[in-house]
Amino acid sequence: MKAIDGWITAPGGFTAAGVKAGIKASGKEDVALIVSENLASCGAVFTQNIMAAAPVLFSRRVAAGGYARAIAVNAGCANASTGERGLNEARAMAGLTAELLSCGQQEVFVCSTGVIGPFLPMDKIVRGLKDAYRELSVAGGGKAAAAIQTTDTFIKRAAYEFTLEGRTAVIAGIAKGAGMIHPDMATMLAFITTDAAVSPAVLSRAVKKAADLSFNMVVVDGDTSTNDSLIALANGFCGNSLIDSENHPGYASFFAALTAVSVDLAKLIARDGEGATKFLEVTVDGAPDFAAAKAVAMAVAKSPLVKTAFFGCDPNWGRIICAVGYAGVNFAPEDLTVALNGVEVFARGGGVAADAEKLGAIMKERDIILKLALGAGQTSATVWTCDLSYDYIKINADYHT
Amino acid sequence: MKAIDGWITAPGGFTAAGVKAGIKASGKEDVALIVSENLASCGAVFTQNIMAAAPVLFSRRVAAGGYARAIAVNAGCANASTGERGLNEARAMAGLTAELLSCGQQEVFVCSTGVIGPFLPMDKIVRGLKDAYRELSVAGGGKAAAAIQTTDTFIKRAAYEFTLEGRTAVIAGIAKGAGMIHPDMATMLAFITTDAAVSPAVLSRAVKKAADLSFNMVVVDGDTSTNDSLIALANGFCGNSLIDSENHPGYASFFAALTAVSVDLAKLIARDGEGATKFLEVTVDGAPDFAAAKAVAMAVAKSPLVKTAFFGCDPNWGRIICAVGYAGVNFAPEDLTVALNGVEVFARGGGVAADAEKLGAIMKERDIILKLALGAGQTSATVWTCDLSYDYIKINADYHT
Repeated sequence: MKAIDGWITAPGGFTAAGVKAGIKASGKEDVALIVSENLASCGAVFTQNIMAAAPVLFSRRVAAGGYARAIAVNAGCANASTGERGLNEARAMAGLTAELLSCGQQEVFVCSTGVIGPFLPMDKIVRGLKDAYRELSVAGGGKAAAAIQTTDTFIKRAAYEFTLEGRTAVIAGIAKGAGMIHPDMATMLAFITTDAAVSPAVLSRAVKKAADLSFNMVVVDGDTSTNDSLIALANGFCGNSLIDSENHPGYASFFAALTAVSVDLAKLIARDGEGATKFLEVTVDGAPDFAAAKAVAMAVAKSPLVKTAFFGCDPNWGRIICAVGYAGVNFAPEDLTVALNGVEVFARGGGVAADAEKLGAIMKERDIILKLALGAGQTSATVWTCDLSYDYIKINADYHT
Repeated sequence: MKAIDGWITAPGGFTAAGVKAGIKASGKEDVALIVSENLASCGAVFTQNIMAAAPVLFSRRVAAGGYARAIAVNAGCANASTGERGLNEARAMAGLTAELLSCGQQEVFVCSTGVIGPFLPMDKIVRGLKDAYRELSVAGGGKAAAAIQTTDTFIKRAAYEFTLEGRTAVIAGIAKGAGMIHPDMATMLAFITTDAAVSPAVLSRAVKKAADLSFNMVVVDGDTSTNDSLIALANGFCGNSLIDSENHPGYASFFAALTAVSVDLAKLIARDGEGATKFLEVTVDGAPDFAAAKAVAMAVAKSPLVKTAFFGCDPNWGRIICAVGYAGVNFAPEDLTVALNGVEVFARGGGVAADAEKLGAIMKERDIILKLALGAGQTSATVWTCDLSYDYIKINADYHT
């Protein structure tokens, strides 16, 4: 497996486009199409939010079908809390795309991201989808990545080559936003394409598993949006024999590449959290099981007190061990250890006298690895997050509906 | 039941004191004693944090005994993450107090609040406890309330008179801090005294029940500290027949008064949340049960996006319904309604066109009542919180260990 410099169109048989349809106030690209030449296997994970937006309700049924040709996306309006009309308009987005591609309406995923509440500007959406269809190309991957952004400060993409039966397969992904990182932005979206041949059932399970190791390990503010969608398409252009079981000889390398793309995108999302000045990787070792390890890592990564301490460059282990203590996981306080970029700050039930100068330098770094060991088992989990700064408040308080 | 203007010494048979022992850098009162003339029934609730501080470990055993004479408190140092030495020093605080009062060491509660990590300055503690003992008086309630504060911006107290068998009973309480509302402050403490005669078993159950309706319904930043303690003493000076069962004719009015004091203190804690510019009461109606109602109210009250919207005076229902949707409670989106100070902003699955001017005026108010109805049952729950402002970040990021 090797990281490559490529867009979502890097895998064979995929084209994409991103166009300016006038939905975003900024006038930037806001409608994207991602298309497979043939009917691809699909796998997807959607928000668990009960207020799930219309495009999520529609796309869940596409995912259930197991096969898809395309993903139609708009940014600038989430089509959330829009009732029956919203559902009809999501269906219309799929219908128009299906007409353009001469495929079935149930073979087109629909995603929207943006403000919750308003109805879609359907005239702009229709024009945008038609324009995007005309511009579909392998070179269009970059503009598609731009079109799904809202207030992301940089484009999030990842691509890998891996070997399947001696052939070179490619997997690539793009993403935007973390949780509800932007005011009212019903976010996150992530799309992954691969030219590996994978059956819908295997792809579906693999995507859920990869999401649990990546997107589900990111926390910015703990808000789970109404539109979160992760969609993967596998079109088989690579020519490998169909990976139709986890026991297939190609499964392991496929899953490793899928997880690598997912983790890369997830980390980029944490790094671009609203107002972030620091990227934090929180690893918990020595937990009795994954759920426990994740619960502790999440408690620490979500704690506003921990996050503001990192913003303030303060190696404040008191806040960290406090969050560990309320995570609902059993361990012996005297077995807990805490280290910041390799420097131990807590052990044997109390603080460790650390080199203050060294610790001060670590706290000024952009990337900080916080390692916790519970001494209560053999399992680990890693969560990615960012610090909590004035800018988070500014971005979220100054914004008005 | 009638609210009265009184300190924790308002119930008969209680004295208190607060003295300056030099533990707080500010030089303000930092050691308090609250004493009952006789051995009182006790009931208590402590933090569930696994990293529970030494005074919590000690006081849990006092509570288990059912009876206590006194509460010895210091602010400025939490005696948390201090291991065996910390436990010995908590025991020493109780031992000295017991010696002064000529009672058993297991009849003295010990509470500490302040920075996590350092050991107690025992010379100052000893001097402080001796000074406090000398100054014990009915008039000392005010100074005791001052001594338990750390960065609270105002003193939190409540007192009520209620009738028991024709006699006037009094119940009073003081509190400090909410969750870990202050940097490293291992907080909250709440003490309640009453001259009603209540058995330890009934008092213990009543305190847990009252806490579930009050202190456990407050959220500032979601951090549960290492030192949280709620302790109630009932000394029987009122002369009523012992309330030794929930079926006792006096139980209902006692429990109502206990709950009233607890709710008053809990609300004051939310109102004094770090950086708070607004007090928010979140009520969820129409839930299938209390746990569900509380889960929804807590999801909304904890959401950084909701809290920053209130700071920004933005009637942003999108963020509210999003938090409702991820609370893990089942309901039909079209049945959900949301109202701000009585003005409906969301119903029938979408936004409600509200009077923008009226809504703008409501959002500028200091106190806002957010009412949610799920239409999924008959049960309600109310949670209290505050908004999330620049000052929260300032207080927590600028502070250094």
